[in-house]
Order: sequence, then C-alpha cells, then structure tokens
Amino acid sequence: MIRILYRNSKAGVRTDATVEQLPALLAECQGKGDVVWVDLYQELADEAAPEHAAQQADIEHVLRDVFGFHPLAIDDALVETHVPKLDDWETYLYLVLHAVVFDQDLDEVDTREVDLFIGPNFLVSYHFEDIPALEREWRAVTRDERHSKRGPDFLLYELCDSIAGDYLPCIDAIDEALDKVQDEIFERPAPDMLARAFKIKRAVSHLRRILSPQREVLNKLARDDYDMIDDRERVYFRDVYDHYVRLADLNESLRDLAAGSLDMYLSVTANRTNEVMKALTIVTTLFMPLTFITGFFGMNFFGGTTEVPLPVNPMLLFVVMSVVMCSIPMAMVLYIRRRGWW
Amino acid sequence: MIRILYRNSKAGVRTDATVEQLPALLAECQGKGDVVWVDLYQELADEAAPEHAAQQADIEHVLRDVFGFHPLAIDDALVETHVPKLDDWETYLYLVLHAVVFDQDLDEVDTREVDLFIGPNFLVSYHFEDIPALEREWRAVTRDERHSKRGPDFLLYELCDSIAGDYLPCIDAIDEALDKVQDEIFERPAPDMLARAFKIKRAVSHLRRILSPQREVLNKLARDDYDMIDDRERVYFRDVYDHYVRLADLNESLRDLAAGSLDMYLSVTANRTNEVMKALTIVTTLFMPLTFITGFFGMNFFGGTTEVPLPVNPMLLFVVMSVVMCSIPMAMVLYIRRRGWW
Amino acid sequence: MIRILYRNSKAGVRTDATVEQLPALLAECQGKGDVVWVDLYQELADEAAPEHAAQQADIEHVLRDVFGFHPLAIDDALVETHVPKLDDWETYLYLVLHAVVFDQDLDEVDTREVDLFIGPNFLVSYHFEDIPALEREWRAVTRDERHSKRGPDFLLYELCDSIAGDYLPCIDAIDEALDKVQDEIFERPAPDMLARAFKIKRAVSHLRRILSPQREVLNKLARDDYDMIDDRERVYFRDVYDHYVRLADLNESLRDLAAGSLDMYLSVTANRTNEVMKALTIVTTLFMPLTFITGFFGMNFFGGTTEVPLPVNPMLLFVVMSVVMCSIPMAMVLYIRRRGWW
Amino acid sequence: MIRILYRNSKAGVRTDATVEQLPALLAECQGKGDVVWVDLYQELADEAAPEHAAQQADIEHVLRDVFGFHPLAIDDALVETHVPKLDDWETYLYLVLHAVVFDQDLDEVDTREVDLFIGPNFLVSYHFEDIPALEREWRAVTRDERHSKRGPDFLLYELCDSIAGDYLPCIDAIDEALDKVQDEIFERPAPDMLARAFKIKRAVSHLRRILSPQREVLNKLARDDYDMIDDRERVYFRDVYDHYVRLADLNESLRDLAAGSLDMYLSVTANRTNEVMKALTIVTTLFMPLTFITGFFGMNFFGGTTEVPLPVNPMLLFVVMSVVMCSIPMAMVLYIRRRGWW
Amino acid sequence: MIRILYRNSKAGVRTDATVEQLPALLAECQGKGDVVWVDLYQELADEAAPEHAAQQADIEHVLRDVFGFHPLAIDDALVETHVPKLDDWETYLYLVLHAVVFDQDLDEVDTREVDLFIGPNFLVSYHFEDIPALEREWRAVTRDERHSKRGPDFLLYELCDSIAGDYLPCIDAIDEALDKVQDEIFERPAPDMLARAFKIKRAVSHLRRILSPQREVLNKLARDDYDMIDDRERVYFRDVYDHYVRLADLNESLRDLAAGSLDMYLSVTANRTNEVMKALTIVTTLFMPLTFITGFFGMNFFGGTTEVPLPVNPMLLFVVMSVVMCSIPMAMVLYIRRRGWW
Repeated sequence: MIRILYRNSKAGVRTDATVEQLPALLAECQGKGDVVWVDLYQELADEAAPEHAAQQADIEHVLRDVFGFHPLAIDDALVETHVPKLDDWETYLYLVLHAVVFDQDLDEVDTREVDLFIGPNFLVSYHFEDIPALEREWRAVTRDERHSKRGPDFLLYELCDSIAGDYLPCIDAIDEALDKVQDEIFERPAPDMLARAFKIKRAVSHLRRILSPQREVLNKLARDDYDMIDDRERVYFRDVYDHYVRLADLNESLRDLAAGSLDMYLSVTANRTNEVMKALTIVTTLFMPLTFITGFFGMNFFGGTTEVPLPVNPMLLFVVMSVVMCSIPMAMVLYIRRRGWW
Repeated sequence: MIRILYRNSKAGVRTDATVEQLPALLAECQGKGDVVWVDLYQELADEAAPEHAAQQADIEHVLRDVFGFHPLAIDDALVETHVPKLDDWETYLYLVLHAVVFDQDLDEVDTREVDLFIGPNFLVSYHFEDIPALEREWRAVTRDERHSKRGPDFLLYELCDSIAGDYLPCIDAIDEALDKVQDEIFERPAPDMLARAFKIKRAVSHLRRILSPQREVLNKLARDDYDMIDDRERVYFRDVYDHYVRLADLNESLRDLAAGSLDMYLSVTANRTNEVMKALTIVTTLFMPLTFITGFFGMNFFGGTTEVPLPVNPMLLFVVMSVVMCSIPMAMVLYIRRRGWW
Repeated sequence: MIRILYRNSKAGVRTDATVEQLPALLAECQGKGDVVWVDLYQELADEAAPEHAAQQADIEHVLRDVFGFHPLAIDDALVETHVPKLDDWETYLYLVLHAVVFDQDLDEVDTREVDLFIGPNFLVSYHFEDIPALEREWRAVTRDERHSKRGPDFLLYELCDSIAGDYLPCIDAIDEALDKVQDEIFERPAPDMLARAFKIKRAVSHLRRILSPQREVLNKLARDDYDMIDDRERVYFRDVYDHYVRLADLNESLRDLAAGSLDMYLSVTANRTNEVMKALTIVTTLFMPLTFITGFFGMNFFGGTTEVPLPVNPMLLFVVMSVVMCSIPMAMVLYIRRRGWW
Repeated sequence: MIRILYRNSKAGVRTDATVEQLPALLAECQGKGDVVWVDLYQELADEAAPEHAAQQADIEHVLRDVFGFHPLAIDDALVETHVPKLDDWETYLYLVLHAVVFDQDLDEVDTREVDLFIGPNFLVSYHFEDIPALEREWRAVTRDERHSKRGPDFLLYELCDSIAGDYLPCIDAIDEALDKVQDEIFERPAPDMLARAFKIKRAVSHLRRILSPQREVLNKLARDDYDMIDDRERVYFRDVYDHYVRLADLNESLRDLAAGSLDMYLSVTANRTNEVMKALTIVTTLFMPLTFITGFFGMNFFGGTTEVPLPVNPMLLFVVMSVVMCSIPMAMVLYIRRRGWW
Repeated sequence: MIRILYRNSKAGVRTDATVEQLPALLAECQGKGDVVWVDLYQELADEAAPEHAAQQADIEHVLRDVFGFHPLAIDDALVETHVPKLDDWETYLYLVLHAVVFDQDLDEVDTREVDLFIGPNFLVSYHFEDIPALEREWRAVTRDERHSKRGPDFLLYELCDSIAGDYLPCIDAIDEALDKVQDEIFERPAPDMLARAFKIKRAVSHLRRILSPQREVLNKLARDDYDMIDDRERVYFRDVYDHYVRLADLNESLRDLAAGSLDMYLSVTANRTNEVMKALTIVTTLFMPLTFITGFFGMNFFGGTTEVPLPVNPMLLFVVMSVVMCSIPMAMVLYIRRRGWW
C-alpha cells in the first residue's frame, strides 16, 4: 500500500495524490514548512505470493526513480533487517527505528522495523508490518495541520516520540509480570515459573538490543548537525533521547531482576529440598530404632524352635523396652533441636 | 501549594509575596545576591481530583507565563518522571534531582523527584511529594539571611548538599540490614531472609540508578561553565560531587555484598542439606542391617509350619548374632569416620 | 593451486594467464578498472608431504618476487594464524578475514582464514582451506564482467559481502539448536543436553572472537582513508560493516541465552530432585509409623516365651490399632498439604 | 596532638617549635629545600569527650588561621571521610590517602585516612587514627636530614612510598589466607570456611575501593603539572604509581579467586552430598529387598491362626530363599557398578 | 653471572670482554649497527647466601657506574617485581618483560621477569631466573652476525619475539588440559577434576595479568616514537604486538571455558545426585508398602496371645494379599513412568 500525504501553504494537508503525481508534488512543495510524506507499506508477508513482487516493484520504483535514493540504502530498507541506525546520505538521512508491539500476557513482545528517509521537504516511511505508532501519527497529521506545518523534521520528531511512547507500557507490563513470577516463586516454586522467567528474560534482552542503538540514533539527531534537521528542532530530539535514556535504564534494572529470579528459584528450591530432607530424616531417625527394637523382640529366640532361656522376668523386660522406646523419640527430638534442624 | 521566598538588600528575607506580585519581584531582584525562590508543590497525588487540575493550572501558569520556560522543559517537570539530569536552556538551567526517603526497617527506600529551574536571580522548585531535605533548606533560608545572600547558585548548592546528606544514613541502614541478614543466614537460613536480601538488592539497585546520574549532574555543575553558576561557587559543587562519588562507591560495594548474600544462602543451604543427609545416611546405615538380622531370625523357619532343623545350638546362635549386631554399628562408625563424614 | 584472473578494457575478463606472465600483466593492467586477482590456494594440509614444500615455495615466490610484499606480511600470511586484522603497508593493504563454515547439526562451526593483499590494481588472496564464499565470488567474476570492472576495491567489497553472507545462516542455526536444547531441558534434563549446550556456547564464543575484530576491519575500511579504496566505494564497506554490527549483536544475545541454558539446567534438575525427594519423604513418612506398629504387635511379648498378660481385650486392641493405622496416613496427608509439598 | 618539624639551611632538622611560632617559622622557611611539617593528630575518637572539642579547635585554628586553607578543604579533612582524592587549591594541594592496617589473622583489614596539605614549603598532615607509615617517616626525617632537604614534595613522595609499602604484605597475607581456605574446602567443606571466605572477599573489596582511587591520585601527581611538585620529583611519584598499579592488579586477582572459593565450596558440597546419597542408596537398595523377604516368611500364614498349607518342602524353600537373599546384594552391586556410582 | 657480547664492524661478534673493559667497549661501539649486550644473571635465589651480596654489588656497579642508569630504574630492576611496563628515561628505555615457563602437566605455569635497558648502542638484560628464550637468542646472536648487525633495537625485537614464541605452546597445553578435564567431568565428576580446573583457572588468570600489560608494552614500541627504536624497525614490533593480541584473545577464551568447567561440574553433579535419588526413591517406594503388608500379617493378632478370629478363609486372604503385593510394584512403575523419572 502506498499512500501520500502532503501539505503546503496553498493546499493545506491533503492525501489525494497518486504515485504519478509525486514528482510534481515534490517540485511544488519546496517552501518553508511544506512537506510530502510517503508511507510505503509492504503488506504481504508471503514472499512467494505473486502480488508481493508487484508491490515490491512499485515500492522500489518510488524509492529509486522518484526519490533517487542510493541502491545500498534501498537495499537496506527493502531486503535486510537492521538494528536501529542512522546513515547520513548528504541530501537525505536514512533511519532504521523499531516500534514495540506487545500484549499484556507478554506472549508477544516484538519490535517492528520502520525505515525512514528524511529530506529537506519529504519524509518516506517503509515498513512490512503494521506499526500502530505510525498509524496514530498519520491520523493526527491528517486531522490537524499543526502537526505538519513545521516541516518534515518536526514530523520525524513526532513519529519518534510516538514510537517511544509505546515502550514504557511494555516495560511496565514486563515489570509487573516479573513481580508476579517472583512472588509465586517465593510462594511455591514450579517449573512453569522458570519458563516464564526465561521468557521475560528473553524479552528484556530483545528490548535491550533495540533500545540501546535507538537511543544512540536519537542522540545523534539531538547532537549532530544535519541539514535536514532545523537547529531549533534539535531540542525536541533531545527530549525523546531523554526518554530512551530512561527506558534503557529501566530495562537494565529489569534485566538484573530477571537474572535474580533464576537465582531466587534455585535458592528457594534448595531450601525446600532441605526442608523435605529434614522431615525425611526426622521420621527415619525416630522410627528406625523403634522398628529395630520391635524386630529384636519379634525374633524366634523368644518363642519357637530357637528359643533361648530369658534371664529376666518378661514383664520387667517389656516395661524396660517400653521406656526405651519412649525415650528414643525424645532423645532424637532433643538432638535435632540442638543441631537447629527444626 | 505555591510559596514564594525572596531576598534583596532592601527587604532582607521575606516570604509574604503572592503569585500576582511575582513579575514585579523578579524585576526588582536584579542586584548581586538578590534571589527569588518559588517552591511549587503539587500536593494532590490523585489526578482525578478536581482540585488537582486547578492546582496544576496555577503551577503551569507560573512556569509558562511568569518565567516563560520552554514548553518541553515544563512538560519534563510536570508530566514526566526522569532520572537525574541537567539541561542547559541558555537563560536558565533545568535540573532533575532525586531526594531519598527511607525508614529504618527498609520497608521503604524511595527516591522523590525535585525539578529545579535556576536563573541569574531565581530558583524554582517543583515537586509532587514531600521532600524533607527541601523543607529543611526552606526553613534555614527563612531563619537566616546568610543562606540566601550569595544568590541562587549558593542556594542551589545548599539544596544539593541537603539532598546528598540524606543518602548516607540510608546507605548505612542498608549496610546494617545486610549485615544482619548475612549473620542470620549463617545462623540458620530461612526463606524470609532470601526475601529480605532480595528487597535490599532491589533498593540498592534503585539507588544505583539514581546516584550515578545524580553524580554526573553535580559533576557538570562543578566542571562546566554555566552563566547561572558563579565561578567561585563551583568549588562547592565539587564538594557535593565528591559526596556522590563516595555514595556511588559505597552503594556499589553494597551491591556486591547483596549479590554475595544470595550465593551465601545457597551455599549454607547446600551445606545444611549435606549435614541432614549425612545424619539420615548414618541412621539408615546403622539400623538397616540390624533390622534385617532381626527379621531373619523372626522368620517362621525357626518356629511355625515351615520350621527347619537348626544345625547349631540356639544359645550359641543367639550369642553370635548379638556379637554381629554389636559389631555392625562399630564397623559403620569406623567406615563413616574414614570417609570424613563426621 | 595458483590461479590468475585479470580484466582490462582490451581483453575483458580472462583466466588464462600463468605465473610467468604475472609481471607483464601487472604492468599492463594499470588503467582505471583494470584488475589482476591472484588466488593462492595451499591445498596440502600435511606439512610433511614433499609437494607441500614445493607449492609453498611457488606461493612464496609470487608474494615475494612478483609483488614484493614485506617479509613480515608474507610471514603473517603463510606461517601464522591471526584474528581478523588490517595492516596498511603504504602501497598495499594486508587483510586477514575469516569465513565461516558449518553444518546444520553444528557438529562443525569453524572459521577459515583468508589472507588478502590489495593494491591499486591487484588483489591477492591466500588460503589453505576451501573457502566457499571466495569460490562463489570467483565464479561470479569469471561469469560477469560487471563484478570486476570497478577495480580491486569493489572486488574486495564483494568478497567481504560474500563472506559476511555466510554468518547469518550459521547464527540462525545456532539459535535454533539452542531453542531446541532449552525446550528439551524443560521437558526432561539429561547430561547430553548439557554437552550440547556447552558445544553451542563454545561455538558462540569462537564466533565472537572472530566477529568483533572482523567488524573493526570493516569499520576501518569504511572510515579510514586508504589509497587503494576509492572514496566512493567506502559506502559499500559501511554497508558490510552494518552487517557485522548486527551479527556481533545477535551473537552476543546467543551468548547470553547459552549461558542461561546452563542455569536453566541446574534449576530444572534441582526442581526434579526436589520432586523426587518429596515423593520419597511422603512414602517414608506414611509407611514407617505403620511398620513400627506392625512390628510392635509382632513382638513375642504377645505370644511366645516372653509373653506378658494383656490388660485389654485383643479384639478391642486390634480395632484401636486398625483405626490408628488408618488415621496415620490421613494425618500425614494433612500435614504435608499444609506445608505445601504436594 | 600537634607536633611541628622544620628544616632550613641554618637550623637543620628541628622539632622544638610550638604552634605559636608557626607563622614565624613559615615566614622564615622560604628557601630552596626548607620545609615545615605539621602533623595534626586528633587522638580522641570519642566525640563526646570534652577534650575532643578543645583539640578539634586547636587543629582547626592551625588549618584556618595559620595556613588559611579554604573552609571546604578544612571541612573535608576534619569532618568527612573520603576515598583517596586530590584537590588542587592553587597555592596548595589537598590529598586524601589511606594507609592500610591489618593483622596476620585478617581479623582486621582496615584502611585509615590521612589528609595532607602540601604547599611550596610546608606539609600538613591530619589523621584521627595512628598511622604506622607516617610514624616511620616522621622518625626517619627526625633522624636524618637527607629525607627533608629536598623539600616538601620529596617528603610527600617518601610518605606515599611508605604508605604503599604496607599494602603488599597485607595482600600477601590475604593471598595466603585464601590459599589456606581453599585447601580446607577441598579437604572438608564446613560453614566456618564460608564465613572466612566471605570475610576475605569483603577485605579484598574494601582494598579495591581504596587502591583504585589512590592509584589515580599518584597518577595525577606523576603526570600533571602542579606548582608544588618539582618536575624532577615527578619520576618518583611515577615509581609509587607503578606500585599501586601492581597492587590493584594483585588485588583484582584475589577478588577473582575469592569469588571462585565460594563456587568451589558449592561444588565440593554438592559432590559430598552426592557421595552421601550414593552410600544411602546402596545400603537401602541392598537391605530393603532382604528385609521384605524376611518379613514375608515371618507372616503368620506360616504358623499361627492364619496358617496356609505349603506346597513345597520347608527345607527346600529355606535353601531357595537363602540363595535369593545372597544373590540380591550381588545383583545390586553389579547394577550399581554399571551405572558408575562406585 | 655477568657476560658481555659485542659486535662492531671491525671485530664482528665477540664475547671475550670483561666488566673492566665495558666502558672502553661502549665508547668504541658507536657506529651504525654496533651493539654491546650485557647480560646480568643473579643466579643466587637465596638472599642470605654471602655470595649473593657480592654478585648483587657487581651487578649494581655495572648498572650504576658503567651505564649510569637512574637509581629508581636500578631499584625497579634489582629489588622489585613488576608487571610488564615500559619507562622512557630519555637516553635509554627501561622495559620489564615476562617470559613464560611451563611443563606439559601444567604442574608449573610460571612467568619469569626480565628487565631490559636499551640505549642507542647497548642492550642490558637483568634476570634472576633462567630464561630459555633469552638463552636461545644469546646463542643465535653468538652464532650468526646477522642477528646483531641491525643494532640493539633489532636485537630487542628478536628477544621479544623469542619470548612471545613460548606463550603459544603454553596456551595450547592449557587448552588441551581443559578439554581433558571437561571430558572427564562429563564422564564421571570427581573432586580432583575440580582441583585441576581451579589450577587451570589460576594459571589462565596469571597469564592474563601478564599478557595484557605485555601487549601494551609492545604496542608502545610499535606506535610511539623513541630515539632508540629505528622507525624502520617499528613494523617488527607491530608484528610481535599482533602476536600478543592473539595470545590475550585465546587466553580470554580459555578463561571463559575454565569458568564454564566449574558450572559444568555443578550441573553434572546435580544431575547424578538426581539419578541416585530417583533410584533410592523407586526402591523405597516399591518395598515400603510390601514390608508393611508382611509386617501386618506377622502381628500376633494372627497367632499368639492376642489372637483375633479371622472372618475370612486364610487361604483366600493369602491369595488376595499376594495379588496386592504383586500389583503394588506394577502400580509404582506406572506412576513413576508417568512422572517421567525413568
């Protein structure tokens, strides 16, 4: 899907242009605050589909023939996947950003790539997955001229800000999930918590791989001198950069905590094993001697072929034995308490 | 709550101004050592409360209309939360600092954000939680003119120093709690210690996330050349910076020790499990053979339908058996000692 | 095996030259886009073989006498093994790159060294193992003049790109293997998974040792100013550099995950031991008291020489005993449930 | 205690001056190689003692009124504790150094702060604990003029060297203690070794926090250009710096080894638990089946009310049973050996 | 032992000079390619031996009086031990290098210090242990003039190269030992493997402490501009530097693997404990219920004083009991299989 949005002082914000009109539009929109935003959306994930190739060709045509971007930049955008980066191609910037998509159960914590080309009066976005943050920005720009009349650099800022805005709820959701897992591990450790802790760890590690270079991209936009970024807008990118600093920071804490969950699991399990072992040992220690004594007086030396004469009165023996039997558990309890097992 | 404190050579320290008088006050206090301190306190945590919006509007009015701060800076202060940072907006500095609040039981180790704007003759502070360090400074300034007559930069130094002063007792409390937990783990490991060690680890990790950027803010104040900071006052910020270097350092040690507590817990638990297992094994090893022997002579081969003729004298058999029974525990004890289990 | 490929505007791409013609060829191919590519392949791994020395001598002759490279550079290429590096010898560059070779079962994840010399109009490659990426490039250059007519620097770029292209499938294979091992560990931990996880960890660690310096080599080619690299081609090396950034990044994640697998193994094993122990303890706790009771009433105090008079009716005793026997398991079950073992 | 040592070309080394004579002495000792060393020792640890305040006032008087140091520097010295640092106050340097104090049993590994002020012709030292290294230097200077006649910077060098000299035996003692603990852990792990290993780890971590900034202080003295340090003496500070490089290095190794001790403890304990478990399992596996068989033939089905007719000859049954009883242990031993438990 | 080797264009390589002739030799050998190499070998390890002091005095005489080195440099060489370093004393360089000495069983992995002074026409080496690499170089220089005729800087390069050459076999030996230990741990973990893994870890950690600064020394020689190092020779030091880069790199991998061995040990042990526990639990679970049943029917309620009337036919009871006894093991096996223990 190729859609075009443009704004100039005469026409205001319009979305009615076709690909064929693009060159004329670009020539027309050269004034201060004029902007042409071309959003290229490769909807077909299945590369084998026949429509895929056709759409790809249309998109490539726009990038190559209309805008005249460098073949390597087009290749970067269309073929390859990248971590966030910023390439300066002199007359335009090429940016790779990642927007986050997640659900509350954290069954999915994914980042989706958006490729952006920004020139003095145009912004080109390319993506092959649905990007909610971009959609929000597109609708906002269509609705209200204020978003677009400060030129493509301000548009880029708003897009960056919109993308950054999705990361915080994601990190909050991870934080909550982690808290829940840790509470459950303390309550009663079970392997599925281990699985969940690992899933969280993986998500955190994925976010980290994105957040750190994305922060650097924003840092470059805020700090370096690019022709396409007005000096007065740089402060806005610094603001988004501060967001990413905080996000990366929070994510780093989550990483620590996620790693700690696994240690906690091991410790809690070790502790429970120790508890179980103590119970086993106490029971064994109590009953083994008793069972031996009952076995002793169950032998046929005291009634049967192998009978041997008893030197003592049976009644006395029984009483002594009963006393011994009662005193063994008591001695054991005392011993165990002294060793601090209970 | 909005309160205003000002000092100039004519009036001395006064706190009787209203928001309406602020512009006049700012115009008046332009001399060397004149200072206007506006403290904006958003007391209402509940954003849904109707008074919240009104207060927010009042505060925003002061920041936007009276002082004319940049919208992004106001947004940073009022809407967002940040790790400590320092933004230079040319005619004023915007600082985010965090004050620590804790109780001795470490049930709460929290940091509270203070947003500060400092200009040539004014200091604006904004916070939405009670900041004891700021309160102390406010009272000190009201009481004694010496605190304010060196201008807003010295006021800022005193505020930074006051905030820094709360961190050391907090870190000491954590250190003590950690020591206590470690001693208890050595004494007898229990899951609640694990929980406490994790709580401490979390607090340390939280402090670390604050102390490190806060130190950098002070470093910038001590090192960089800002119009609002008198060169002669820079040495004071270096002093506070040294505090934070030490705090970050101590906190880092605590982090090491907290991580060590968890390892210690695992090791001590493993050791206790080993002890318990040895006891179990010794008891089992002693009594199992004995029980077998009693069982052997309890069989109905020696008295009953299945009786078989004994080739030896029962009395002799009984004596031999008794000797064997006595020697088994002794052999076991010897064997166990040789393997070094006891 | 020594093979020579050359291209100039007159002859096009040719591969029919011999070592003897090399000096003449080099003198001839001085124009823009002319290139001589000499591929030196030391096929004989066995250094003791007589042909080995002869081939080595031929190769050394080309490097020393025909191209006149510095003895140290020749030594680096022929004798020693290196991690990727780039040496600037003023009139030529000496590069060490590593190509990856692996099979899907990860029984082999190996990197093979290619030594490259690049001058204004020549490219010399030396290797003592088969390098599929180099072979692909050689065939492509032979087939299509477009690959060679931009000079040796573009040839070098294509070679670098071809080598980089093999790493991604390798890392994907490792990722898949790791996922499989982790799933199996969760299912049922067994020592062979530990062995596989360690093998993967070793492969990842090996790749890391290669990818990081190789990325730096490409970074130098993209950033630094070398006489042999046309300024306009530098952007291509930047593209390959971006590849390596992503590869190193992915590999770093794999490293984290591989380390996590071992922790996971320990945790899952600890958990299973805990499960087993609980079962053992429950069984023991249930039957030990029962066995004691049966032993008690099996003693010869109740029938035999040592008979003692019973104060109660046997039938009543039997019923009481049966009730006690039934209640013991129930009490145990209740106790165990209360401690949360089941 | 305040003591004064001075040297000039006329008087030689003298220690007979009083605080009142200090200003005159300082005015007098302005020549090349003249030096006044004032050692301020706050002996009273108890801040509540009345003499404490008096002594503190005397010391403060010297620092503030006689030498005129900056209030912040005095505050740093008298009130606060610091990690090693170096502040340049233009006409003098303020240094914080830490001397190590330890006993062979490592019951105490402590570092004690020395605050030093060095100017063109004076050295002021302040400490509130006994510093053996400083005491040695004081005695050496008193005894032999050669130590003092190269001015205060050489005196400072000697003091730094003397302090550095105490660290090596301390690190050696830790190394030895660690070796001993590790040997004992291998021999037979016990919780007190864990406690000792943790104590060592804590000492190492404490030294690390001191050695690293102390090294940087020496690095600054060796590298930076200060008015109070003669260029020709800088090479001496480089020498002390090299010491600290080695000390920090050794300490880092100790840290690794100390962390390894805890892992070792866990591994050795796990191993011993495994050994114990094997013994238990073998004993249980041997005797449980035997006990069952004896129980079987002890039932009253073979003699008693519940007697059932035997289809076989009792003698035959007894022999068969005996053979089974003998073969069970043998089978078990074979099985156990095959699984590699013994 | 003091031995002197010199080379000049007239005499060629000679080793017949005495200490007394040294000043004359040094005055004589000033031409291009002339070199005097003085090797000082303090053979007596025992500092208490009377000959030790005499030899030390001789050596000190050469360093101080003949060459006139700085007292600090002499002190560094004779008294102290250092990690590798390079000090520039303007007219000469002072280097500390470490040569590795090891045996195949890794019972000894030691590094020995060589102190080197290099000037425009001389090389002085000092060591108090036998250095095979230095010995090899000495013999090579004596045998063949080519080694010495490029001056002391080339001699230094050859010495550095010779020293570097001993590290690779050492690291290979460690790698092999590590492989062997890991294989054995997988086979059957035993405490002596733990001890060996720790010994290897210690050796790797020791090498790391040496290799990293030694690499930096070579880096300085290759990169910085020293009067004593001819610019054309710098490329040779770069070559040795590349060696150390690779060595440090390999060593780092070994460190990772050694740390992994300990984790592996713990995991394999945990796994084996789990196996043992399962066996124990299965045996106990099988026989405990059976033993209870035999005990039940062994009570004197079925024959003896406490006899109670049976409501059922004994034969029927026996058959039912036998069926129950047979079904219990089967049920257990089914249950165990379902929980995945076997």
